[in-house]
Amino acid sequence: MKFKIAVIGAGSWGTALANLLAENGHQVNIYARNQKIAASINNQHLNHKYFPNYILAKNIKAYSDLAETVAEAELIVISVPTQAVAELSNKLNDLLPDETIVVSTAKGISEFDFKTNSQLIAGAGFTNIVALSGPTHAEEVMEKLPTAIVAASQNKSAAEQVQSIFMSKYFRVYTNPDLRGVELGGALKNVIALASGICDGLNFGDNTRAALITRALMEMNRFVEYQGGKIITLAGLAGMGDLVVTCTSMHSRNRRFGIEIGKGKTLEEAKREVKQVVEGVKTCRAIYNWLKDNKINLEMPITEKVYQVLFNGEDPYQAVEELMLRSKKHEMEEIVDNSLWAQE
Amino acid sequence: MKFKIAVIGAGSWGTALANLLAENGHQVNIYARNQKIAASINNQHLNHKYFPNYILAKNIKAYSDLAETVAEAELIVISVPTQAVAELSNKLNDLLPDETIVVSTAKGISEFDFKTNSQLIAGAGFTNIVALSGPTHAEEVMEKLPTAIVAASQNKSAAEQVQSIFMSKYFRVYTNPDLRGVELGGALKNVIALASGICDGLNFGDNTRAALITRALMEMNRFVEYQGGKIITLAGLAGMGDLVVTCTSMHSRNRRFGIEIGKGKTLEEAKREVKQVVEGVKTCRAIYNWLKDNKINLEMPITEKVYQVLFNGEDPYQAVEELMLRSKKHEMEEIVDNSLWAQE
Repeated sequence: MKFKIAVIGAGSWGTALANLLAENGHQVNIYARNQKIAASINNQHLNHKYFPNYILAKNIKAYSDLAETVAEAELIVISVPTQAVAELSNKLNDLLPDETIVVSTAKGISEFDFKTNSQLIAGAGFTNIVALSGPTHAEEVMEKLPTAIVAASQNKSAAEQVQSIFMSKYFRVYTNPDLRGVELGGALKNVIALASGICDGLNFGDNTRAALITRALMEMNRFVEYQGGKIITLAGLAGMGDLVVTCTSMHSRNRRFGIEIGKGKTLEEAKREVKQVVEGVKTCRAIYNWLKDNKINLEMPITEKVYQVLFNGEDPYQAVEELMLRSKKHEMEEIVDNSLWAQE
Repeated sequence: MKFKIAVIGAGSWGTALANLLAENGHQVNIYARNQKIAASINNQHLNHKYFPNYILAKNIKAYSDLAETVAEAELIVISVPTQAVAELSNKLNDLLPDETIVVSTAKGISEFDFKTNSQLIAGAGFTNIVALSGPTHAEEVMEKLPTAIVAASQNKSAAEQVQSIFMSKYFRVYTNPDLRGVELGGALKNVIALASGICDGLNFGDNTRAALITRALMEMNRFVEYQGGKIITLAGLAGMGDLVVTCTSMHSRNRRFGIEIGKGKTLEEAKREVKQVVEGVKTCRAIYNWLKDNKINLEMPITEKVYQVLFNGEDPYQAVEELMLRSKKHEMEEIVDNSLWAQE
């Protein structure tokens, strides 16, 4: 079955997904606020800003008007930064039936009301929401490298429909009912990627990063479980899979941003360097403030240290060293099974 | 407290640990079968083969005679390949009391009797065995980069003694009672590193590797649980921590070996290229044969594919593609909580 699909947002991920969907034979409209990008997609079949070297599928039509983009659309893919999702969803809901399937692709938490993207989309009135999340660099999807991703929704038939629409020879889609775990895992890993980048910017090595990633997964587990998600989800693609790729690849903006911070740049200097939106920065502040404002006693040392470095001028080197030199002696002190020790 | 310690094996890891222990103030002897290496350590304070650019602590004494090396030793560190551990342990047990603490640092499974290193050491008569395992490249320990590692033993006081002997400002040691899980995690991740290297040698990207690592952790979980280890151990440093670093770093010999295979080299050609012992190759064959000989029905698709590529001439590209294009539709089909789907 072929569908009429509207992709909202012509950044790297929106463009890569639009291209994938068009190559799967669907009729794809893409919304590019920037008229030059829209013209370049329509006339030269390329997104000169994000993928100057890839010819896009010729059946993608670009618009800079939202209503035109979504006219007759049966499925919407939202690919804008988290902080823009609420406003966009409200506009879309004026144009479309509530039951339209909406695919959410951003990985963040809204800063002032502490909501995930699916909550923001639901808040606008939509009822069939699917989050697409996993270890998926847009560049590599453009190159058709084998990629696996999760389609998460509380609505099984919506998840399965998204699965069959996006699935291709090189793009494997797995369904998962734990929407909450998938979304929060994706958001928090961006904060961890900042920390991993900071370590790299300071020229710490692979050993340090591996220790950090291991502790980060524990931190993600605590956060997701507190928020009603499932720990097992974080053992999958949207958890450790995405964490690993984000913390080790130069494709990751969050990591690149962290590297600049580790090298001693300020927040503003790092922003100028990386240019694109770095979700982890606002997600970090959102989580930090949520913990503080609600007096929540949840151990999140990495997120707290990243906050102190980004927003309170703490020295990155000292922050990493403090993280590494904590007093714990057992691995996983809270959960270690002490009955395993032989009786003496 | 300062101890008399004998490190057996002057490869990269043995040398790095000897240097760490000597800098911690212990009296360290190191056994180097190769007399030139022993002379270079004694006379120039360097291991010209593995670390030509690092001056070692001057209180390390090297010997090429095993009895001389271990004379008066209170603690033994074994740092030779797994396939040499049984014979070495028998020799050591003739020279030392059974209750001497023996620290095991290799990560493999013996090929013909399918035993872990601690089982081989126990088989020689020793009773206080501690496995040291985690994401720890020797080069980075030499550079004093922050590193975290696990000291695993069924004997709590032995684990704690090893912890306090090795612990330094940049080398954090955590105790863990799950010796079995720690050893098997370390062994199996070397097989996964071969698979990850094969992907890289074929020029697959970060997305592919992340999907592979995620599935690999599930495979490690199944194997370790079947063998009586704890899944939670694999969420820690000796599991996912070590897996991540081994699959992403050029320091990893197993990964480098896999890269050569992915590029189309034969087993023999890859051996000539990498030179050092690559534990994953024999561990892979050991696990494959154990599954087959005992008709064990345990799903280990990555290990099986690596075996077919290494020993049965299967095409690496086709092997990776088959791994990526399996028929599963849910993520974690076996364990997904279907009650999470909303009722329709």
